Amino acid sequence: MVQPQLSLHVLAGIPLVEPGDNLIDLLVQSLELTGLSLQPGDVLVIAQKIISKSENRYAYLDEVEPSSEAVMLAIECDKDPRQMELVLRESRCVLRRRQGVVIVEHRNGYVHANAGIDKSNIQSDEQRPRVLLLPEQPDNSAKRLREGLQTRTGIAPHIIINDSAGRAWRNGTLGFALGTAGFEAVENRIGEPDLFGRELEITEVAVADELAAAASFLMGQAAEAAPVVLIRGAHLRASEQGSESLIRDPAKDMFR
Amino acid sequence: MVQPQLSLHVLAGIPLVEPGDNLIDLLVQSLELTGLSLQPGDVLVIAQKIISKSENRYAYLDEVEPSSEAVMLAIECDKDPRQMELVLRESRCVLRRRQGVVIVEHRNGYVHANAGIDKSNIQSDEQRPRVLLLPEQPDNSAKRLREGLQTRTGIAPHIIINDSAGRAWRNGTLGFALGTAGFEAVENRIGEPDLFGRELEITEVAVADELAAAASFLMGQAAEAAPVVLIRGAHLRASEQGSESLIRDPAKDMFR
Repeated sequence: MVQPQLSLHVLAGIPLVEPGDNLIDLLVQSLELTGLSLQPGDVLVIAQKIISKSENRYAYLDEVEPSSEAVMLAIECDKDPRQMELVLRESRCVLRRRQGVVIVEHRNGYVHANAGIDKSNIQSDEQRPRVLLLPEQPDNSAKRLREGLQTRTGIAPHIIINDSAGRAWRNGTLGFALGTAGFEAVENRIGEPDLFGRELEITEVAVADELAAAASFLMGQAAEAAPVVLIRGAHLRASEQGSESLIRDPAKDMFR
Repeated sequence: MVQPQLSLHVLAGIPLVEPGDNLIDLLVQSLELTGLSLQPGDVLVIAQKIISKSENRYAYLDEVEPSSEAVMLAIECDKDPRQMELVLRESRCVLRRRQGVVIVEHRNGYVHANAGIDKSNIQSDEQRPRVLLLPEQPDNSAKRLREGLQTRTGIAPHIIINDSAGRAWRNGTLGFALGTAGFEAVENRIGEPDLFGRELEITEVAVADELAAAASFLMGQAAEAAPVVLIRGAHLRASEQGSESLIRDPAKDMFR
């Protein structure tokens, strides 16, 4: 069998995560159960949902007092005013609103429907409806996991916390990187000669999003919950910068 | 060694492609050289550039007579008026223009800077400057490759013709599917219970773009030209629909 350049493994046996759970323990156990041990250069892509759950980012709707702005938004968009209050608290501004749709700039910079809130929400056996917010600071969460895994295993993997979202121009959701640790999320690569062959064009490649999308494909296809994917073979460039480089400066964005 | 769920192989030994080259021959030879034979369900992701070259989608700038609209656009954006003429011919409309940037809706529906033209352009030893346009109908090109490979090998692989492009809101380019054959480019998947646990949410997932991005990551990282990536392990849904489902109806797009 020929060795692939890039291989993606779904980690087995990750249980339903509860607030306070130690994800380092879960990851170490799951790697062992899967028959894998971390190698230098490995990337762990971790679904936002289990980070948020472990960090207890639940909000109970009966504890939310909607502001008048949230009530207005809920009427305009035909949504729950308490949910809209949470969306507004999580956002810098609302970019688009229409029946059934609220697209915001999240306070961490990503453009996301409902501030990423409504996709992972209540379990049906819950007495009190609750929703799950995105991690407070995904880059910090990623960094903690990286450091924790280094302490436990001797290897500091690259970490991507991924989510999936809609986008402009094209149908269908796509996985993207919400937070990263350990590597350059956007790589400057030297491109091809320009139109007149005189200079080299620099291309910025969103490698973190490309790998997040690849892992998201597998997470979505798995028959059971598959919140963690190990990617082996990616040659990423070490960096402490986090995922900020992925966020386009709103002033330079022609599509807001 | 634990088997990965998804593996990506860069095909070896694809030469520089010239107009008229038979890509089926090149792919079959390259698979053999790489030590791989097609298996049912395999996906071949093929860089737009080699499709365009084999289809002789070169345009010579000295043969292009810029219209007055192209001249105006070239002045506004500080570009070559002949190149702008080609961009306009390849496009339905210009969405954004500013110094150094022209973003259009390509006649096939994708939103793309310079109609995808200026990234792969002249070779420096060319006497006459030329540029390379996108394939005329990428879905048709994909279908022909799929059928040709089936005839030659007995296996009809799923095909993605990929390119990479910038996007709204986020920095860095990302691979995406320009054309597809054999599978559902956008999958309807049943999601999680909704906010009140009463109904199931349907999520549309752009699986073709997720796989295109994964392959694009490898193509960009390869030390040498790596225009074809085989993806094994993706369980795609058979369909004859092509990539049209990926294009959002402009009337329903809130970010144009």
